[in-house]
Amino acid sequence: MADTSSAPRHIRLTSHAGGQGALPIHWGAATAAERGPVVGTTTNRGHRNVIGTHSGSYSVYRALAVAAGALSREHKADLTNTSPTDQIGPYPQWSDPGKIVSLDPWGAAVADVFATELAAGYDIRPTIAVTKAHVVLPEVIEAMQKGRISADGKILMRGGAACVTKAAIEPVWWLPGVAKRFGCSEANLRRVLFEETGGMYPELVTRSDLEVFLPPIGGQTVYIFGNPRDLANPEVELTARVHDECNGSDVFGSDICTCRPYLTHAIEECILGAQRGGVGLVSYSRKEGRALGEVTKFLVYNARKRQVGGDTADQYFARTECVAGVQDMRFQELMPDVLHWLGVRKIHRLVSMSNMKYDAITGSGIEVGERIDIPAGLIPADAQVEMQAKKAAGYFTPEGAPDADALKNTKGRAL
Amino acid sequence: MADTSSAPRHIRLTSHAGGQGALPIHWGAATAAERGPVVGTTTNRGHRNVIGTHSGSYSVYRALAVAAGALSREHKADLTNTSPTDQIGPYPQWSDPGKIVSLDPWGAAVADVFATELAAGYDIRPTIAVTKAHVVLPEVIEAMQKGRISADGKILMRGGAACVTKAAIEPVWWLPGVAKRFGCSEANLRRVLFEETGGMYPELVTRSDLEVFLPPIGGQTVYIFGNPRDLANPEVELTARVHDECNGSDVFGSDICTCRPYLTHAIEECILGAQRGGVGLVSYSRKEGRALGEVTKFLVYNARKRQVGGDTADQYFARTECVAGVQDMRFQELMPDVLHWLGVRKIHRLVSMSNMKYDAITGSGIEVGERIDIPAGLIPADAQVEMQAKKAAGYFTPEGAPDADALKNTKGRAL
Repeated sequence: MADTSSAPRHIRLTSHAGGQGALPIHWGAATAAERGPVVGTTTNRGHRNVIGTHSGSYSVYRALAVAAGALSREHKADLTNTSPTDQIGPYPQWSDPGKIVSLDPWGAAVADVFATELAAGYDIRPTIAVTKAHVVLPEVIEAMQKGRISADGKILMRGGAACVTKAAIEPVWWLPGVAKRFGCSEANLRRVLFEETGGMYPELVTRSDLEVFLPPIGGQTVYIFGNPRDLANPEVELTARVHDECNGSDVFGSDICTCRPYLTHAIEECILGAQRGGVGLVSYSRKEGRALGEVTKFLVYNARKRQVGGDTADQYFARTECVAGVQDMRFQELMPDVLHWLGVRKIHRLVSMSNMKYDAITGSGIEVGERIDIPAGLIPADAQVEMQAKKAAGYFTPEGAPDADALKNTKGRAL
Repeated sequence: MADTSSAPRHIRLTSHAGGQGALPIHWGAATAAERGPVVGTTTNRGHRNVIGTHSGSYSVYRALAVAAGALSREHKADLTNTSPTDQIGPYPQWSDPGKIVSLDPWGAAVADVFATELAAGYDIRPTIAVTKAHVVLPEVIEAMQKGRISADGKILMRGGAACVTKAAIEPVWWLPGVAKRFGCSEANLRRVLFEETGGMYPELVTRSDLEVFLPPIGGQTVYIFGNPRDLANPEVELTARVHDECNGSDVFGSDICTCRPYLTHAIEECILGAQRGGVGLVSYSRKEGRALGEVTKFLVYNARKRQVGGDTADQYFARTECVAGVQDMRFQELMPDVLHWLGVRKIHRLVSMSNMKYDAITGSGIEVGERIDIPAGLIPADAQVEMQAKKAAGYFTPEGAPDADALKNTKGRAL
């Protein structure tokens, strides 16, 4: 491993308008050709038409690879054979102004729709990848053993593997649209993104001509059970969950919340729905600990468990606010974008109790039928604190919200 | 939700040396007082002594919270009752030059060791949080049912919950030390981090006086089975796995790799080790898809499955290189830092076959006894392609590496 800069080169501290050969982006245009490609690669700076670069957070690791001498600055991805296994869209929502502002609807199809620009030397990267997979969950196998679900050889195999189409999606933010979602001016959004990150990307405030930002954050993954084209057909029953990452439960099975049990219940519902001729969808967003991050989450756990009177449901949100300043930073305002990318117009069965998710989905123009709460038997004892606190705060519940006494008396384990 | 800027304020595009009241950081100093606090908050810019800000990627969501008017710019965390459930260190490794360069060993104890500075108005945030949890994994319950493991009422409860101490750790990079690990100059590292991210943080190149960088990337989480103090005692048997995130397998159980099966096997080994008087450790790093990100990972899946001749082990690494330019961006060079933070000097049983992890751990001065490979029965059929390719590339295997014929004949499922 060695230094990669053999000769001194000029460092440009911030970029200036008027790059050589940068193509315009007309966000929300009806066709890919009119919209233009998102060029966030660093191989030819003059071609860049966005702030930031690809792969979200992993752009930092890419830089490390260059620093270590393992990766050439000039590497361009060979996209042979990488195109989507299933074509998604285009759908009318892609050009409905403001329906999609946080991902690039053309991001999976760049090798196809921007073939001319690629041939002309533009280094255009997919921001979405679509593939097929078999997923095997112990909870699904248990459901088969208990007779709740059975193999059909197409959606669910005898060994317990479910067949899915899945897509990974990187964030691509059209700043004017993101600002509108949050009810602030674009200028204010740009300024706060710059200042409150300690000065990330001065272009946010100096380059108002660049309207697209590739933020260094995690994206999302969608898992589709059944035919992806059916997602756009409101006549086909759609079972869906929009899930926010919780590593402690999703991977390690922590019993302080219901994240994994609700997720695996949703997968079971998706499989059942697909088996009766419908389609299932799980969207998984990288928003650990309500987008506060895991350090803040664990600090809050300690504050909850140690407060006078113990970990009670009536103090659940207050402890988060003390540490983080807010109860939640997930901002479901951007979440429906992925549903519009998939052409969704109606969710027949929404496997979520969150009023914030429900309001964001219906507010974006998607109809929601039934709401499916988590079966009582799947709620770990220690997670009742969170569950009761959320019901009192407006979560959907068929039995009605708990009263003040019930909240005080719902108490979790001590440390 | 409304604009948060009531009056026009001056925007400072890049910060200049000579902040008012910024405290010095002497990385690797023997005591917290000599080392000084890491101040990455944005409440008082004059106090900042690092590049970047807290919470890794989630700093972007924090900025959104301010833009949306939900969070005050001036919010300081109330750290009441948040301190670690278990004290980690201090250990001699904390002040052994170069042993720890990518996390702040004092990051969990700031409320205690920097109490004076906090009282003086410095807004110091923990970069590590330590708590207790009960984790319930279906694979552990299955191991109990099959008689491989049984409850003891302390490490493993009758219902299948394992009792753990866990810590979430945010990245805190001391740039001179990170550069040394990668064999490049600090100037080159700073320049490449700036340029290859499309211009993130000009301070990387303009503020050589700021040696500490809080990168906007995911951190890591450690799960400890048994007494955390025992990790630092080489006489106590330590079973450990250092695991890199794979959302597709860890959460959804994709059968194309061995990630979750190996992880749950390691947890079983950790519990068994703790039950016979030892201690267990799983370190989970947010490095999705070998730190290439999930979009690149799925593109590679498609290229593997569609290439002429199908998905064979002999072409496994070639397909990743075509798309990403490298086989792997995880760079295990920084991984041992967390082990040194925990005081580890010997790993008796390393549950990993990776030669890159093994080399990084032993190269950093930690002794490794036995290496535990994944039991053959846990390898999904479609994951044999990856497993054989890795064995041929140097992964630890008791049976010896496969030959060229075996690699060609190890073939995965088509799309």
